[in-house]
Amino acid sequence: MPDKILDDISHRRYNPLRGSWLLVSPHRTKRPWQGQQEAPGIITLPEYDPKCYLCPRNPRAQGDTNPDYSQTFAFVNDYSAVKEQQQDYEAEPSSNDLSSLLLRAEGVKGKCFVLTFSPKHHLTLADMSAEETLPIVETWTRIYAIHLSPTNPLSQVAAKLDLLSREAPPESVVPPPSQQLRYMQIFENKGAAMGCSNPHPHCQIWTTSTLPEEPGAEIVQMTKYRTENGDRHLLGDYVKLEMEKKERIVYQNESFLVVCPWWAIWPFEVMIIAKRHVRALVDMSEQERLDYADSIQEVTRRYDNLFETSFPYSSGLHQAPLDGSQEEIENSWFHMHFYPPLLRSATVRKFLVGYELMAEPQRDITPEQAAAKLRDCGGELYRKKLQ
Amino acid sequence: MPDKILDDISHRRYNPLRGSWLLVSPHRTKRPWQGQQEAPGIITLPEYDPKCYLCPRNPRAQGDTNPDYSQTFAFVNDYSAVKEQQQDYEAEPSSNDLSSLLLRAEGVKGKCFVLTFSPKHHLTLADMSAEETLPIVETWTRIYAIHLSPTNPLSQVAAKLDLLSREAPPESVVPPPSQQLRYMQIFENKGAAMGCSNPHPHCQIWTTSTLPEEPGAEIVQMTKYRTENGDRHLLGDYVKLEMEKKERIVYQNESFLVVCPWWAIWPFEVMIIAKRHVRALVDMSEQERLDYADSIQEVTRRYDNLFETSFPYSSGLHQAPLDGSQEEIENSWFHMHFYPPLLRSATVRKFLVGYELMAEPQRDITPEQAAAKLRDCGGELYRKKLQ
Ligand SMILES: O=P(O)(O)O[C@H]1O[C@H](CO)[C@@H](O)[C@H](O)[C@H]1O
Ligand SMILES: O=P(O)(O)O[C@H]1O[C@H](CO)[C@@H](O)[C@H](O)[C@H]1O
Repeated sequence: MPDKILDDISHRRYNPLRGSWLLVSPHRTKRPWQGQQEAPGIITLPEYDPKCYLCPRNPRAQGDTNPDYSQTFAFVNDYSAVKEQQQDYEAEPSSNDLSSLLLRAEGVKGKCFVLTFSPKHHLTLADMSAEETLPIVETWTRIYAIHLSPTNPLSQVAAKLDLLSREAPPESVVPPPSQQLRYMQIFENKGAAMGCSNPHPHCQIWTTSTLPEEPGAEIVQMTKYRTENGDRHLLGDYVKLEMEKKERIVYQNESFLVVCPWWAIWPFEVMIIAKRHVRALVDMSEQERLDYADSIQEVTRRYDNLFETSFPYSSGLHQAPLDGSQEEIENSWFHMHFYPPLLRSATVRKFLVGYELMAEPQRDITPEQAAAKLRDCGGELYRKKLQ
Repeated sequence: MPDKILDDISHRRYNPLRGSWLLVSPHRTKRPWQGQQEAPGIITLPEYDPKCYLCPRNPRAQGDTNPDYSQTFAFVNDYSAVKEQQQDYEAEPSSNDLSSLLLRAEGVKGKCFVLTFSPKHHLTLADMSAEETLPIVETWTRIYAIHLSPTNPLSQVAAKLDLLSREAPPESVVPPPSQQLRYMQIFENKGAAMGCSNPHPHCQIWTTSTLPEEPGAEIVQMTKYRTENGDRHLLGDYVKLEMEKKERIVYQNESFLVVCPWWAIWPFEVMIIAKRHVRALVDMSEQERLDYADSIQEVTRRYDNLFETSFPYSSGLHQAPLDGSQEEIENSWFHMHFYPPLLRSATVRKFLVGYELMAEPQRDITPEQAAAKLRDCGGELYRKKLQ
């Protein structure tokens, strides 16, 4: 690697997808750690927990009872951050000039779902096979599809999807949307260190009438790149470049590339990127859905193997808006981010705090070093070997 | 408050200082919390800890020994994130087009200091009086002043500062800079929950050859506001507006306003804002430095009183760059941010994770509710009352 000097000197890297910089201090991992230690992951959960509000047959907070589901199970979050029905907000008409400049707000409507990955309380994605992960990808695709705007070109693609004509697993409670929403954010918080309050494997889906900041910023950057670079896609070019360089690749299959991106902030941050121009879940072929499930598998298993612990992370899918301009939809390129906090061991994490919040994100090991470690810990899940 | 509807509905608020949006879900605090609990703050620290590398007379990691200091003590961080001397980085000359677009980096030089607030290991800012906090403000001012570029108009102001002609406390080890740097970020991580690895009261000062993202974005926004609004300052107008509205004020004295900003992300986030146009520490009069110390005092004491615990936070000062265009320096307006994670009690924090990282920051209580709570818990420090 001709950039080897970057292993030794402090430098900044540019994130073209977000349009922002971060500070890299590779020599800094040598400092001793005397701060907070994370609790090592609990490894002896029961397969069924009578107190868990996500286990089959159990009651939930607002009085509903979960069905005796056998694969995935989706329902409307009992404590949704956004709701479909609420009063409209109009800024005070009497407002003076300064209020309208400095006290700006807008109402946000939407819908929040919870989706369990398995009826088994003690599993995580890392414990599952690609085939067992596939129903999750299929459920994401179905839920995304039914929320698409009829004017979104992707809704024509969805209409032809074989998957959608097959009957969905009967248990899920996904009422059709009562109004058109703008964006769907699918994300998982895994582990207590990432604010997860229930170890039962699940993700959340928040759908809003507004385009949130992060996917919004990415779409602006992707659009700009395409305009400035002869109609080529930012992530298309990036996949090509990383496959040439081979310095940050963690894993790949026919359809997806897994890399520690050049601009990673979290110590072992990775991105799963579609190799061809997939705008959203509904663009994927059956084989691509399986390849995507396989990529998720490879990431989560390597994470657990790295420090031989149930690795915490937040992950999220970025894809085309449900509703938006043709340009926004065409410029979207399907990818998934994983932001894991652990740095040196199962109990020592990286804190993104003072300098990171006040000035600029800062990382210690380089993305190339992180990728090399993750490349090396594929294979069977460490827990299985121990059994 | 005519915007009372915002206490009930999900909405987004705009942060004009950063140019970004956040989601507010006021009804969401009702959900039960079953996730990670923070360890309650250790309250019985010794006044002197022989193993602490910040206590007077103790040895440090790289072999130095701390002087027997009596107030504040500054020294170069033994594990600096940036250094004054390192090789220069030039991108591979053989790089193809894509590398220069997508793998961008630049070297960063700089200097990192640690500054203790007191020789006493067991104190925090909340335990100190405004008079005891003043030497910290004075040391910040001195360190900032000696790093100013000779072409920065603020260096003329500094030259006339009475404070700087007085002799600095003799113990500090602040070697004069060997090269001109661009920005100085002063920040504190307090508490294990905010990644602090040593409870001895201290802050850090990282000075870099680059302008970091956050102050950079603020300067862009402040400049834009001034251009578009008849030469008025964004934070000048904001102070005026908040003093009229009286809905988010936590505290004020002659020179500073303390508010939970309209656009706060963290549950009890506050800003200390100069009431008049203070560009940087060196612009403050003797009275203003004392008023600033008093404001810090009022914030940290209220924080501790709120949940009767040693309240964790990250805080940081934003002010004019050390070196920059006349316009950047003129448009800067001194303020300090506090980002505290606790939400409901000494042990339940807000996690900014999945949705927040992937989509948009989200908060539960409104800034108006937070301000009302902080307004109500002034007065003596709860620990003193217990004694
Ligand atoms: O420098 P410290 O206190 O060891 O480290 C702390 O503050 C730094 C600056 O915000 C962060 O980069 C570290 O992750 C955090 O643990
Ligand atoms: O919805 P949960 O899992 O209760 O809550 C978790 O995820 C949310 C979305 O990222 C965050 O807002 C919460 O702070 C976090 O604890």
